[in-house]
Amino acid sequence: MQFKFAKRASTLKASEIRELLKLTEKPEIISFAGGLPAPELFPIDKITVIVQDILQNDAKAALQYSATEGFVLLREIIANQRMTLANVKTTPDNVLITAGSQQGIDFSARLFLDDGDYIICEDPSYLGAINVFNTYHAKYLPIPMDEEGMIMEELEKTLQAYPQAKLIYTIPDFQNPTGRTMSVARRKRLAELAAQYKIAVIEDNPYGELNFEGHRLPAIQSFDAEGWVIYLGSFSKTFCPGYRIGWICAEDTVLNKFVMLKQVADLQCSSIAQREVAYFMQRYSLDEHVASIIAVYKKRRDLMLDGIAKYFPAGVKYTLPAGGLFTWVELKPGINAAELLIEALKENVAFVPGAPFFANGGNHNFLRLNYSNMPEERIVEGIKRLGKVLHAYYD
Amino acid sequence: MQFKFAKRASTLKASEIRELLKLTEKPEIISFAGGLPAPELFPIDKITVIVQDILQNDAKAALQYSATEGFVLLREIIANQRMTLANVKTTPDNVLITAGSQQGIDFSARLFLDDGDYIICEDPSYLGAINVFNTYHAKYLPIPMDEEGMIMEELEKTLQAYPQAKLIYTIPDFQNPTGRTMSVARRKRLAELAAQYKIAVIEDNPYGELNFEGHRLPAIQSFDAEGWVIYLGSFSKTFCPGYRIGWICAEDTVLNKFVMLKQVADLQCSSIAQREVAYFMQRYSLDEHVASIIAVYKKRRDLMLDGIAKYFPAGVKYTLPAGGLFTWVELKPGINAAELLIEALKENVAFVPGAPFFANGGNHNFLRLNYSNMPEERIVEGIKRLGKVLHAYYD
Repeated sequence: MQFKFAKRASTLKASEIRELLKLTEKPEIISFAGGLPAPELFPIDKITVIVQDILQNDAKAALQYSATEGFVLLREIIANQRMTLANVKTTPDNVLITAGSQQGIDFSARLFLDDGDYIICEDPSYLGAINVFNTYHAKYLPIPMDEEGMIMEELEKTLQAYPQAKLIYTIPDFQNPTGRTMSVARRKRLAELAAQYKIAVIEDNPYGELNFEGHRLPAIQSFDAEGWVIYLGSFSKTFCPGYRIGWICAEDTVLNKFVMLKQVADLQCSSIAQREVAYFMQRYSLDEHVASIIAVYKKRRDLMLDGIAKYFPAGVKYTLPAGGLFTWVELKPGINAAELLIEALKENVAFVPGAPFFANGGNHNFLRLNYSNMPEERIVEGIKRLGKVLHAYYD
Repeated sequence: MQFKFAKRASTLKASEIRELLKLTEKPEIISFAGGLPAPELFPIDKITVIVQDILQNDAKAALQYSATEGFVLLREIIANQRMTLANVKTTPDNVLITAGSQQGIDFSARLFLDDGDYIICEDPSYLGAINVFNTYHAKYLPIPMDEEGMIMEELEKTLQAYPQAKLIYTIPDFQNPTGRTMSVARRKRLAELAAQYKIAVIEDNPYGELNFEGHRLPAIQSFDAEGWVIYLGSFSKTFCPGYRIGWICAEDTVLNKFVMLKQVADLQCSSIAQREVAYFMQRYSLDEHVASIIAVYKKRRDLMLDGIAKYFPAGVKYTLPAGGLFTWVELKPGINAAELLIEALKENVAFVPGAPFFANGGNHNFLRLNYSNMPEERIVEGIKRLGKVLHAYYD
């Protein structure tokens, strides 16, 4: 049997991260792979109160079809509360509820990318976004980063050389995979460049609220007076990923297009899930909940960075994330992190090799470590074991 | 500001149905538009029991990320229970959980359709599917129907004339919009033709369990020995649409491609929603619940058909649906149903004009009536008023 697939079907291959996660589900594995939040922090008691309330007072609407744009109260709270935190002035009419920020990435690609179009992104960038762009046969213009994020001089050179580029995709806060954060000055500059070169920016921001060192940084969108920046938000890291609720915040023309894409893609997000998230934020403080997440993740980050300093060979480089879920490790050239993983799994430790995060390939000597999902004693033990494996390559 | 959209963005226009639904939300409107189930039948007490149980015993997993393919127990129950009802022998590994059958339609288009590819469908067909196919710049080969569904001789002529056609899209049970049902002999013939002409079939089947006159008919997929038929199922009409849970059942190669599409599109369906649907079916009988829906919808259908016979002008034709949510009305040529709607709204009655359901346009003298969402006395009153409006055109 030979199906007549579309050309794009040839780009569909399983995500390395997902395949790895399957391998690392055994309880004896200390996993720094994946990007899972800590489930012991989910506010289960409060969610129980909220759900009972919905099923007693609002069940018919919560279980019925509802508007494609999303539940009005949720859109209001996002506009007035979560976007305000990011210093963005907007209205509920500029918010569309999506199935996580992943759906926002997919919709952005679908709205902007014809076959062979150029997309500008950080080098490295989020693997799950690269997999989306691949299905639209995108070509990549990866921009080098330093500790302050994407380098703006490099971005401008690329914009000059490729005026036909369709999109800039960026994760400014505690980037996946590097953990790096774009400085405020560069955010401002990025917004200026977008307006000057008339190019849309996808600001993918699932981690921004998880700032361990200070207040939420202003979003790139907060510096955008003209509407070039499309902001993607998510409750997956600040509340619970199991609901699959995120949002797009964008100016009217482009938001209307996204609403129509939502309609053809899946009609709407879950009516009851949208209510659970909205009523939680109405009744309790999501900021307080986020503060409790930050306290735990900060401690885990510290333990991981301390462990790396103590147990990894001296030549290993790594980032110092000020928030989010990941640190990014650079090994000496010649070490292949995929081969290292096989050795690490013998010690029951898992991580994600870094090469797939580079849109144009190469760079086999990197790896990503997640610190949000393992309890403290396992972080220390896992880094110790990983250090032992690494020393065999360095000593 | 001029965004550089993809070419496909030009096809994104608001669905007439959705726009109409906005107009008809006023409580005084008797609405036969939309395709909403009756919310008074949602099993709220049982759902409350299930949700409490999940949040007490399985909350961490229910609120966390989970497998792209879907919750294992739900896939098992679908394979062993819902697909068995449709006479399809399959395995849980051949089931992917999707955000309603709408997402199954969108994924099918994405997997099979290159720009300008031909798709074969019933004439008329589901507007929400036509809107999807439009975003992939599909060309349509609509096949005439009679009371037994798509006419197989016409289908075969089309397959001979257009061997390059990529897909057959069909809604065999209580079709949207016509309410017609494909006979068992034609289902068998369609499966034979698919194998003979080596073309994939999308069997979109959200209404099949709502059979008022007898047992569930065997799915087209049940006659397919080779794997050409891709079955799309949904809990939106048999349980609650608010969860956005449906499924794709397909042979291995194509199912794996769909899993990868799910991964790029939105990672997975809601972990907690999948558990609510699965545990409901494990603890209670969905068949019993469906029986209670059928009892109510059958009565509503009878009232609507009796009202049409009594109050509509003699020349009006309409279908006699044996299940599902809709009947389909043909007016005399020259009456434009969109203009009729304006008159009907003056009497506070709404319906959906039929023209947008014809993929290649025309046919302005049709309209679709939904009987599932209005209480009995309003059905009688609404049809009476609609009859009055129609008489002005006929008398």
